[in-house]
Amino acid sequence: MLTIVVDAMGGDHAPACVIEGAVQALQESNNRFNIILIGQSDKVEPLLAAHNCNELNLTFIHASEVVTMDDTPATAVKTKQDSSLVKGLQLCKAKKADAYVSAGNTGAQMAASLFVLGRLPGVLRPTIYAYFPRLGEGLTNIVDVGANVDCKPEHLVQFAEMLTIYQRYGAGIEKPVTGLLNIGEEEGKGTDVLKQTYTLLKEADKQERITFLGNIEGHDILKGNASIVVCDGLVGNTILKFGESIPGFLGTLFKQSLEKMVISGQMSNDVAALTTGMFKSMFEPFDVEKFGGVPFLGVDGISIVGHGRSSSRAIKNMIYMAEHMIEKRVNQHIAEVLSEQ
Amino acid sequence: MLTIVVDAMGGDHAPACVIEGAVQALQESNNRFNIILIGQSDKVEPLLAAHNCNELNLTFIHASEVVTMDDTPATAVKTKQDSSLVKGLQLCKAKKADAYVSAGNTGAQMAASLFVLGRLPGVLRPTIYAYFPRLGEGLTNIVDVGANVDCKPEHLVQFAEMLTIYQRYGAGIEKPVTGLLNIGEEEGKGTDVLKQTYTLLKEADKQERITFLGNIEGHDILKGNASIVVCDGLVGNTILKFGESIPGFLGTLFKQSLEKMVISGQMSNDVAALTTGMFKSMFEPFDVEKFGGVPFLGVDGISIVGHGRSSSRAIKNMIYMAEHMIEKRVNQHIAEVLSEQ
Repeated sequence: MLTIVVDAMGGDHAPACVIEGAVQALQESNNRFNIILIGQSDKVEPLLAAHNCNELNLTFIHASEVVTMDDTPATAVKTKQDSSLVKGLQLCKAKKADAYVSAGNTGAQMAASLFVLGRLPGVLRPTIYAYFPRLGEGLTNIVDVGANVDCKPEHLVQFAEMLTIYQRYGAGIEKPVTGLLNIGEEEGKGTDVLKQTYTLLKEADKQERITFLGNIEGHDILKGNASIVVCDGLVGNTILKFGESIPGFLGTLFKQSLEKMVISGQMSNDVAALTTGMFKSMFEPFDVEKFGGVPFLGVDGISIVGHGRSSSRAIKNMIYMAEHMIEKRVNQHIAEVLSEQ
Repeated sequence: MLTIVVDAMGGDHAPACVIEGAVQALQESNNRFNIILIGQSDKVEPLLAAHNCNELNLTFIHASEVVTMDDTPATAVKTKQDSSLVKGLQLCKAKKADAYVSAGNTGAQMAASLFVLGRLPGVLRPTIYAYFPRLGEGLTNIVDVGANVDCKPEHLVQFAEMLTIYQRYGAGIEKPVTGLLNIGEEEGKGTDVLKQTYTLLKEADKQERITFLGNIEGHDILKGNASIVVCDGLVGNTILKFGESIPGFLGTLFKQSLEKMVISGQMSNDVAALTTGMFKSMFEPFDVEKFGGVPFLGVDGISIVGHGRSSSRAIKNMIYMAEHMIEKRVNQHIAEVLSEQ
């Protein structure tokens, strides 16, 4: 049975939401795995007591320190050895657990995962991706979304390769398609790094390590002609955060328009309620909580990171994501492919 | 009286839309300026004949060549000397016209503007910005959006300065506020270029050349806490094109949701029509055609560039933008401030 460490201290709504998510995962899955909750006992144990955990495969481990959102990655790793983050990952390293799940400080988790777990053989730099909505079936992943702000061409190519493996084995996409995010479609566009990356991606395509569509532009992301969008972490992080702000921005515009219609008598309250329901359902493709979080690709172990504002549902789905990564042997496939180059 | 050269061959709907836009500008403004339409006579003259131009300050000049969307900037400038682009800008250089307006190939127009008109004193690199919607009053400009994919810190700082001057004198914003687009808010985030830019922007703020808010992130763009968002052309171009794709993407989701509601009988056709009208009005803040196009900032002259898909209304508003840039003496202010550094 798999053992998954869940960081009780990670996330805006921790520890309450995290505990709920862990309990839900065990209840829903009929105790399919062991969960170790890790965190400060004075914060976690009173909340745990409120749940009926006797019949669940749930244990608790105390960690005296907490990595906050303000800690730099270096501080977190070097000075907070008794944090849920470092201690949790060490359980994985010592093979006492199979995966670590947290909605805490992403940068710190990346650094600690790299430091404690190390890299998979052949991997130059671990990376982190995000999910984007698209028209039609399937999914789009953007990589990198902030772990690597300055990328060399060989890093970007490995991101494409790791995502290809993840999508093929982890997401069941038969033929993942990679697009290189650039300012124009034509070969030869963009910075020197992008030009060199283009050449290397074409080569990787020839060797059938990936399927390369060519350069794509900002307006292609939502179209979904590429299932993997490759860019450096500066571009990816900006697009990700910009994208996340859209539902809220449009929600405000929607409310303003709706109020005008209702006040002017053009729309009844009933119709307004109906329209509001429809508007909300429109944004279902933007629901990334169904994935919960994402794994750091390239580290030698399973470390799943979630959004700071993760709900209990997101935490639950992150636990399933950890299980999925292990079952689908994504890391083994990555090591196999990248170490032979 | 001002003389504005309008590129009859530029844009997806050229020359018809361009001619209409020029005619509309003159009719609406009571012949407030002279317009020189420039393009291939066999394409333009038959269409011009269909308009009643006798009473308009409209003249036509033949240019035998056309710069297409596929031409590289270098090809366009070097080999198409008799194009509407090069010839039109040469009229400005020779002081036979005060401004050049086009919805054609942006890269070629940038290169030709720089080549024919030159830079304003003190300007390291001309730039191009875009308009973004925001909550509440005012406007947000993102700079650079593709003219400069690789930027040094001193370029980015000048972009902020030029936009500050443009917003102050050209857009009547008393205190333009600059944000540096980065992966986190804290000082010290991002690439070396961004770290150095942060330091230089802080200095420019101390010297009261700009007002610097600090680092901002992707989700701050639509919030509008900064009226000027500074980034390199790779990030800016991607965000711009991604942003432009959102109304279409959501329009598709909207139609799908609406159809479901109507087919399932939850919504009558009347209510569906009402809701559709409301949805469309929601996207008014995304209407960038009210600005028509943007000037290249930093070139020694007025060269306004519009979106390839510009309508006649956009062309008309680009002509007004040209007039506005001249009246507000934006270039003189830029030269004054940047040449003294």
